[in-house]
Amino acid sequence: MGRVLYTFFRSSTSYRLRIALALKGLDWEPRYVSLPGMQHRAVDYMALNPQGLVPALVEEDGSVFAQSLAMMEYLDETHPDPPLLPRDAKARAYVRMLCQVIGCDIHPLNNVRVLKYLRGRWSLSEADSNEWYAHWVAEGMRSLEASLVQQGRHGTWCLGEQLTMAEICLVPQIANARRFGCDLSAFPLSVAIGDRAAELPAFKAAHPSIQADAS
Amino acid sequence: MGRVLYTFFRSSTSYRLRIALALKGLDWEPRYVSLPGMQHRAVDYMALNPQGLVPALVEEDGSVFAQSLAMMEYLDETHPDPPLLPRDAKARAYVRMLCQVIGCDIHPLNNVRVLKYLRGRWSLSEADSNEWYAHWVAEGMRSLEASLVQQGRHGTWCLGEQLTMAEICLVPQIANARRFGCDLSAFPLSVAIGDRAAELPAFKAAHPSIQADAS
Repeated sequence: MGRVLYTFFRSSTSYRLRIALALKGLDWEPRYVSLPGMQHRAVDYMALNPQGLVPALVEEDGSVFAQSLAMMEYLDETHPDPPLLPRDAKARAYVRMLCQVIGCDIHPLNNVRVLKYLRGRWSLSEADSNEWYAHWVAEGMRSLEASLVQQGRHGTWCLGEQLTMAEICLVPQIANARRFGCDLSAFPLSVAIGDRAAELPAFKAAHPSIQADAS
Repeated sequence: MGRVLYTFFRSSTSYRLRIALALKGLDWEPRYVSLPGMQHRAVDYMALNPQGLVPALVEEDGSVFAQSLAMMEYLDETHPDPPLLPRDAKARAYVRMLCQVIGCDIHPLNNVRVLKYLRGRWSLSEADSNEWYAHWVAEGMRSLEASLVQQGRHGTWCLGEQLTMAEICLVPQIANARRFGCDLSAFPLSVAIGDRAAELPAFKAAHPSIQADAS
């Protein structure tokens, strides 16, 4: 058995891994985990990844990896070409910071499990949970855009001419925000970088709409 | 001017940085940013860290760093002794995974800004926001405890006998959970590791209660 990625087409953290694997030119076999079908909480999957979230990566030797940012760092350390992080420590901190604005300050708040909790526990409407979603996208993207401007390191990509993990986090976040109808007009720099990256073959191959489990 | 850390005593992400700096034996000057006082959104602070969150680190050359996990990686890369991550790629992925269970799946949901939003936007009671807090602590700590058990790498610390970033994330999270009265009895392994780490001098020096801005 080769490398296996447990993925759900619409999961933006799975999307990150699909992009990273494609950029590295690594083969992987998909195992589809339906979040609406609650397959991420099935006994078999919980035995594999007790966090009960996607994605999970299983290497050929059976090692199991969870948490998308940690998994991307692992892939970058074990398959360094092309690099997903720069070599300079300050530049690495900058790229990781951008990834974490998305991976810590936006995505966890807008995860499906959170929206379900809001609607289920407090009987909030879909309009309410959409407002919540848009609030954290707006605040997080404001933070991201302002950080890009302040640090002054951007060019074609967030870090000058070097494509990094920052674009891998940015493209799925923008796709999700658009799916929820969020207004992104206040973040032209971030959106332009994301839209450029989305045109690259590795990003196209990872797009939710062309995954075999897309519905 | 030396190294400056913008910190708030009760912020668990500031607490992480205070521990990391103490473990590395690095000097720093505190600048206190009161979250209840909304000083993190003051014009001067936003000019320094446009994300409008604590902590922020400013190095002697004026470089500004944000996002606590990225900042700890930076400190580890620039001051490698003692290391906060192991050398082996799989072990690094394991430690980062544990950090991200806390840093992505628990803390961002229970941040003060989120609790304020819940109470402010939807007029939820303090009991409601405490229930929300306890829910994500319970789910995140379940995930962490199950990952420790499944991966079978724990010893005195999360990674055998090597103290890492995982304890730096764990100790503030446990302190916060206790402050909110969360039941942690279902997570004996995590709590035992965290409580051992909390006794180390670097962790004690970073404790919220002894910071000059503690109130």
